[in-house]
Amino acid sequence: METLSFLFVPLSLLATAVMAASAAIQAHRVHMDPFGATVLAIATSMGGGTLRDLFLGLTPVFWITDTRYLAVAVPIALISFGLATRMSSGNGRRLKVLMQLDAIGLALFTLTGVQVALDVGISPILAIVIGCVTGTAGGMIRDLLCNMTPSLLKEDLYATLSLLGGAVYLAMLTYLGEALAAGLGFATILIARLLVLRIKPPRDSV
Amino acid sequence: METLSFLFVPLSLLATAVMAASAAIQAHRVHMDPFGATVLAIATSMGGGTLRDLFLGLTPVFWITDTRYLAVAVPIALISFGLATRMSSGNGRRLKVLMQLDAIGLALFTLTGVQVALDVGISPILAIVIGCVTGTAGGMIRDLLCNMTPSLLKEDLYATLSLLGGAVYLAMLTYLGEALAAGLGFATILIARLLVLRIKPPRDSV
Amino acid sequence: METLSFLFVPLSLLATAVMAASAAIQAHRVHMDPFGATVLAIATSMGGGTLRDLFLGLTPVFWITDTRYLAVAVPIALISFGLATRMSSGNGRRLKVLMQLDAIGLALFTLTGVQVALDVGISPILAIVIGCVTGTAGGMIRDLLCNMTPSLLKEDLYATLSLLGGAVYLAMLTYLGEALAAGLGFATILIARLLVLRIKPPRDSV
Repeated sequence: METLSFLFVPLSLLATAVMAASAAIQAHRVHMDPFGATVLAIATSMGGGTLRDLFLGLTPVFWITDTRYLAVAVPIALISFGLATRMSSGNGRRLKVLMQLDAIGLALFTLTGVQVALDVGISPILAIVIGCVTGTAGGMIRDLLCNMTPSLLKEDLYATLSLLGGAVYLAMLTYLGEALAAGLGFATILIARLLVLRIKPPRDSV
Repeated sequence: METLSFLFVPLSLLATAVMAASAAIQAHRVHMDPFGATVLAIATSMGGGTLRDLFLGLTPVFWITDTRYLAVAVPIALISFGLATRMSSGNGRRLKVLMQLDAIGLALFTLTGVQVALDVGISPILAIVIGCVTGTAGGMIRDLLCNMTPSLLKEDLYATLSLLGGAVYLAMLTYLGEALAAGLGFATILIARLLVLRIKPPRDSV
Repeated sequence: METLSFLFVPLSLLATAVMAASAAIQAHRVHMDPFGATVLAIATSMGGGTLRDLFLGLTPVFWITDTRYLAVAVPIALISFGLATRMSSGNGRRLKVLMQLDAIGLALFTLTGVQVALDVGISPILAIVIGCVTGTAGGMIRDLLCNMTPSLLKEDLYATLSLLGGAVYLAMLTYLGEALAAGLGFATILIARLLVLRIKPPRDSV
């Protein structure tokens, strides 16, 4: 993957961190202990990239060839779990923070998924699909393991925004260059998701 | 996969279509919107073949190398979802149609799974097992994502019929040739499943 | 995998048998029939090793290249299901036996996972992680398919003990040799798990 831009590793590590944090908060909401939270955070933050690598045939998968991902996910999970214990429950505040982190993770993982797919020579349309798989699978795994219906299946503007952000990134890549196109794709997904969360806040407030 | 018969692609696309339709009806039954239905339809109709390809080491998986599968699944999902809204609920009719589509998908995906396994030089017994994985995994993923117990685990004559149909296909292959053997395997699974559904109709009538 | 020790296949087959038995008992607890129990046993006993092989890129996965695993899992599942029907329900005895088999499977699969990872040249730290994935995934799949919260997520001393046992095995490998190190790693996980189960017995007694 030598042609991947200099942005790839920092964005992927940041995405790993926010998804690990979202999982740790979810774990706290469903009364897991710090160990369960760590396991959930690993599955959530590695899940999307792992499916991407498996589907594309890029094995061993990324977290085996680069241990920084696990090295980021584990401490972030423990710190976030600790912070979640300080948030009062019942007022939906934990859920709000969780969904905001999830939105950032969705945006970042979508872009890194598109980048990896392009890098192995996949057609643009499929690269957008792979971006969507990479962006949405982690949150889906988190919700499935916690016995909740994944946002992916409940909300119209979740997978759709991931596809849209991937398309924006791809369309702008040749005109604006890597960094600006990624910024625009990221902003598209994040702003749209935050608007959706503001207009139609998630009901469940465990 | 050059030795795969001329029947492979049409049967696979048909299997994709019926499983996508079954997922869209299920999505309607559990009150998803059209977008959730599309995501569910993609996971359901690609799931079995994806596991088959991953287990056999055939990567990138089939829907990345051949975009026709996604091009079939998405519009079929939307059309089926639209048709499902016209069926009256509460009388078990949607569930009946769903189970009939599921039976056709089970039969078709089983055969294509056996074909792919034979094509990569797997022994006949294991080809039947791979056929069963390919045939049953899509419906299992659909039911898991909808928080329902998969038929695979509830019904004795589901995985068993898939194994039986795969065995019939394999046994007849040298005597009857590709097309007739596939027809016989298909008829075995489909007729037996429809009989089971008639004798012991699924209770749940959401 | 020529350098894998002579212990690998017997330990793996034993692990397959105990996990298949644990799944068959679980299937009986949630009122499945023998066929559902067999499917669940296959998914449970092959699940950990399959994820290990997929993540490492070792395809076709192990149960395709060596049919002895399926040949062990299926009859053991049927026999265990038969024995489970003779245990009285409601007193938590089935759950106790299930958890003890699960503890043995956790210990054995962890060690075989570490061995496979070392054999393909993975770093020691990651080999311990792969051992943990191999050891815990089967039970997680079993519990997810039965709509129960996996022990992995509920109990602090489950994944942690798997990591600990893998570390003990690895640390002792150069000093004590394969067999003794494996025995020590096995004993660490098993004794600790049995202690945990004694001190904090699982509540649910379906």
